Parts: sequence; structure tokens; C-alpha cells
Amino acid sequence: MDKLQSPSMFIGVRGKGIISFGSGQPDLPPPESIFKILPGYRSFKYGLIQGNLNLRKALSKEYQGSDEDNFVVTNGASEALDLTFRAIESLEGEGTNILVHAPYYYSYIPLIKFDHLKPVLTETIAGKIDIDDFDRKVRDCKAALINSPSNPTGRVQDIKTLKQIEKICRDLNKVIISDEVYKDLIYERENYLLHGDNVITINSFSKTYSMCGYRVGYLYSNDKKIVNKAIEIKTYSSMNTNILSQEMAYEALKVPRSYVDKQVKIWKERRNVIYDGLQKLGLELWKPEGAFYVLPKIDNPRKAVWTLFKKYKVITYLGEWFGAPGRIRLSYALDSKDIGEGLKRIGKYLKEN
Amino acid sequence: MDKLQSPSMFIGVRGKGIISFGSGQPDLPPPESIFKILPGYRSFKYGLIQGNLNLRKALSKEYQGSDEDNFVVTNGASEALDLTFRAIESLEGEGTNILVHAPYYYSYIPLIKFDHLKPVLTETIAGKIDIDDFDRKVRDCKAALINSPSNPTGRVQDIKTLKQIEKICRDLNKVIISDEVYKDLIYERENYLLHGDNVITINSFSKTYSMCGYRVGYLYSNDKKIVNKAIEIKTYSSMNTNILSQEMAYEALKVPRSYVDKQVKIWKERRNVIYDGLQKLGLELWKPEGAFYVLPKIDNPRKAVWTLFKKYKVITYLGEWFGAPGRIRLSYALDSKDIGEGLKRIGKYLKEN
Repeated sequence: MDKLQSPSMFIGVRGKGIISFGSGQPDLPPPESIFKILPGYRSFKYGLIQGNLNLRKALSKEYQGSDEDNFVVTNGASEALDLTFRAIESLEGEGTNILVHAPYYYSYIPLIKFDHLKPVLTETIAGKIDIDDFDRKVRDCKAALINSPSNPTGRVQDIKTLKQIEKICRDLNKVIISDEVYKDLIYERENYLLHGDNVITINSFSKTYSMCGYRVGYLYSNDKKIVNKAIEIKTYSSMNTNILSQEMAYEALKVPRSYVDKQVKIWKERRNVIYDGLQKLGLELWKPEGAFYVLPKIDNPRKAVWTLFKKYKVITYLGEWFGAPGRIRLSYALDSKDIGEGLKRIGKYLKEN
Repeated sequence: MDKLQSPSMFIGVRGKGIISFGSGQPDLPPPESIFKILPGYRSFKYGLIQGNLNLRKALSKEYQGSDEDNFVVTNGASEALDLTFRAIESLEGEGTNILVHAPYYYSYIPLIKFDHLKPVLTETIAGKIDIDDFDRKVRDCKAALINSPSNPTGRVQDIKTLKQIEKICRDLNKVIISDEVYKDLIYERENYLLHGDNVITINSFSKTYSMCGYRVGYLYSNDKKIVNKAIEIKTYSSMNTNILSQEMAYEALKVPRSYVDKQVKIWKERRNVIYDGLQKLGLELWKPEGAFYVLPKIDNPRKAVWTLFKKYKVITYLGEWFGAPGRIRLSYALDSKDIGEGLKRIGKYLKEN
């Protein structure tokens, strides 16, 4: 149980008979069209640090009023976040505090610290941002990090709240970092893009198009200072993002909207299966409105995660890693049959322990 | 000319009629076998953060006494360096100084600074490390960064010097970061791998196998503290390196040694063309013993780089970016015909300016 220190011990772990509610890895394959370009591909030279031009141009069509200069293509959303934090840290202006709403994606806190910034937490109510607490705390911060839909809660912030956040941060001259990697996976409404000249949007091809292993994400901002600083750092820290996976991402953007709608329908069915199933097992949890995670309460979570893995071959993540003690996180990025089998094993664990 | 602030303005710039002595991008394509796996490839899931197991196992065969746990596969040597610096910075132990021999690869200084460390310079004599100055200065440093063969000098450190560096750093308990990305491109002798438990070796598939755009590199160390810290940071900052390019790298490692020997023969011929050519134009320069760069002296280098680019369509890099004022760097990673044409234009520039 001492080994339960971070999710990295489970990442990429797959094996016979293991049901993994662990990583946020969609089981559904990417659109077949992204593989169509592979057979004839022979490019091998360095690409532009900022990202392939065709991909950035295609992205700019998705964001009103933007052009290709507003984007930096990165090694997944992870590098987009890392570059954003490093850019913010190195640019002038006092303060090192970054406001984060808890529960939060597990990478945020260590990444902010590795980037010589300081996380400050604002607690949420059933996963929803408490705007009064946000307003109070953001005053001492350089930036606020928003993640809606949220990993690990699956909760989506109300549009009213998002507009209040825009106004507060604009008035106080605070940067908003908006991690919207689950923007296409909302069950209740369309995504509301946080916008403004002080906003840096983080996104990825991993969740919408199942391209996790290919590591393509991006940051988008109207703030050229941030964009240029991110490019500068990337020039030294990793250079261009893989040229081939950028072409695959470009192909993914051509896929019709109906592809995404079909995915959302599948996710919603699974959401219902796991939400109902865990409730039936007597666990208390919030209803996910987006993304593909649930965060139920459970007794002795450390023992639960360890025993579920070792004895029942079920991978779950410790809520503690996400700032949610007393809970465990389950990703439902697996087919309904496996979700059912996993729920059965969890039921068995609850009965036997 | 004010725009000449860093090489990033030239990276990925290609155009009709431009002769680029700029980036260290081999023009020779990768071995065809790395493309053979593309047509049938359909994997898409997250890989292990540390790197694909087959690739790390294959790498361990190249380093005596190592196993797969000693490696972290990265987004090129750039990320390997970044992770190494960040790991060193975050691990206990006083001091933030990193000893760097000048002239140096342009990324080193800003990367060290972005990683909250401080570069300390030791000057070289005709590109060769002055071991007395090294010995004096390394005492105030946490680590020494060695790059042999060197970008931008093309010089290879003598084996005697490398052994002295090993002994000094072992005795003083200093970390050695050995950037050996040009290890396979030495014209005079075999590579001498710097070794010891305090050594972190940085390498890449970009130069030996022309895979620049695919961004596959790695760090290798017997120091598990460093390896584990690098994995931890990578978990948050970029996750796995592209799964497909790792498979391509794995294929590259199967290529027979004769492939590399053939490449070296071509590089050596080009080295002779450019070295003789620049001498004939009256420029003073050191003879490259490895890698594919020359660093001649030139009058008013800033004007030279700018005018060569704008008027003669020849890309060269400013020596200043590499800690070599009064010089310019030329990469000879292009075919002998283009080298000849580029030399002609440089001759024209020298005559007309």
C-alpha cells in the first residue's frame, strides 16, 4: 500500500484479466482516416517549433477570431500546460500563486511546483466552483486554472459561473488557464469556451479522437507574449512536436461532427451504467455531466485501491491524488461489459472487506 | 538585423533557392526499414512514461552493464536534457551551477536558466577543454555538461581529457551530463563513452538515423534517483514519448553497423569539401573531427548572417548564439553540390561586402 504514491505506477499497465478504471484512455479507436496517411509518409525533417502550419490553420477555424499565430502545437495537453506555467513564471509581474479548484487533475499540483509556482486551492461544492471563495482567493494569484468538464469529478461548471470567472479575472487582470480537453464530451449542453485576451486555452487530440499515445495537444491564446514565450521555451526543451502525429491530428480535424456525437452517445450510456451501478452498490457520488470519470466516496480508500488491484484485478485511482481524500476515481473509458464486470468485482470487494 | 535573436527564426524554414547551413538536420533520409511498420500500425493508447519496453531493452544492449530500467525515452535529446536539468535542480544537494564548455550548443544556456540553474563557462583552446580551468571551476558546480563531438565546433575531446574529467568528477562527487548525440559521427576514432555512476548520458535518433522530425531521444544513467525523478517529471510535463516514433526508433536500432559507416564516409567527404572551401575563401577555422559543423571566424558576423540570408539566400547561424562571438556556424548537413553552391555565394558575399 505504501507503493500507492502516484498514478504513474498504473499508466500503461495492461494485462490479462485486469479491468482498468485507471487511466483516462478511451478504448474506442481513433477515426480510421488518421491511419490512411501512414503508408506513404516519408518526411523526416524538423518541423516548425510552433507546429505544422496546416494544423494550426485548421485549428484557427475552430476558434472565432483566431489565426495560426495564436496556437502552439505540443506533446499533448501536458506539455501545453507545462509551457504555459513556465511562460507565466518567467514573464514579469509579481506573484507565483496559481488558483486551482479541488478536486483537481493529479498533474496540476506537482507540475505547478516543478515550474516554481505555488498552487492555492479553492474548494468546490459538489464539484461546482464557489464563486465567492474564487473571487476572494484569486486576488492573491497570478492566474486561475479552470478545468471544465473536470477530471476527476466529471462535473461541468455552469455557464453563469464561467462568465463570472471571465469578468472577475478581466477586472483584476488575472490570467485564466482553461484546460478544456474534455470540451467535446459534455452530456448536458454545448461547451462554453472561456474567452478573453487574458485566457490561455489548453486542448488535446487525446480524448476527442482517442489519440493519447500520439501526444498531440495545443495551447491557444490571443496573448502573443505568452505564445512567443511558450515557443521560446519549447525551442530549447523539446523542439517541434512529432511531425507525423501532427499530420494525423490534421486528418482527425476533417472528421465530421457526427463522429464526435456518436462518441458522446456511447460515453453517456456508459456514464449511466457506472453511475447507476455504483449507486446500487451503496456508494455516494456526484453525477458526471462530462468527461468520463466518477469519484465515489469509499471507506479506507488506500486499502480499497490496493486490494482491488492486488486481489480483484481492478485498477482504480486514489482520490487523494486528485485532492479528494475519502474517495476513489474511476474512469469509465471501457466498454459496458467490462464496466459491468468491474462493478461486480467492486461489489465483491465491498462485501468481503 | 535586430531580428537575429535566436536560431528559432530559421528552424523549419525551407524555400526555393535557399541554401541552408542552418539547422543540424541531416538531408540523408532515415533507413527505409523504419517506414516499413507504418502501413499496419493501429496502436493508439498511452505508452509507459519511461518508454516502450522493447526499445529500452534494445538500447540496453548498446550500453554494457545496463538494463531497461536505466533508460528514459524522451522527445528528442532536448527533452532528455530538460528532464535531466530539472531532476538535478529538484534533487537535494546545494548549489545550482552547471559547468559548460564554450562554444556550446545554443540551447544549453537558456535551458539551464529556464530550469532555475546557473551556467558557468569554461573556455576551450581551439575547441578542446582546458583541464586545469575545468578542474578549478567544477569545484563550485553541481554538474558538468560535456558535449563531444561538439555542436558547434565539430571538435572531439581527447580520450585522455575525458578520462581526467571522469576522475575529477568522481573524486569531487560531481554529476557529469554527457551529451553524446554525435557519438556515431566521429571521423578520427571510435566514440569514448563517458562512464561512471555519476554520469547521465544524453542521446538521440535524430543525427545517426536522420529522425529529427520524429523526436526520439533518451537519457541513460546508473543513478536510479535521477532516472526516477526524470520519469516523475515526465509523467506531469509530457507523458509517454510518441508510441509510433518509438517503434520506428526500435526498427532503426536493427539496422546493421554498415549503414552508420556509410553515413560517416559521406559526412567525412562533405567535411573535407567545406573545410577546404572555407580555407580557400580565406576564413580561419578549426578542423571538425566529428558532428557536421564548422565555426569559422568572420568580420562583423551579425551583418554577415543577415546579409547572407536576405541577399544571398544562405542560412548560417550567429556564433554569438553558441558563445562564439566573431564567428558563424555552418552545418554541412546538405549534399556536396549544395555545399559548393553555398560556398560560392559566401565567396560572393565576402567579395562584395
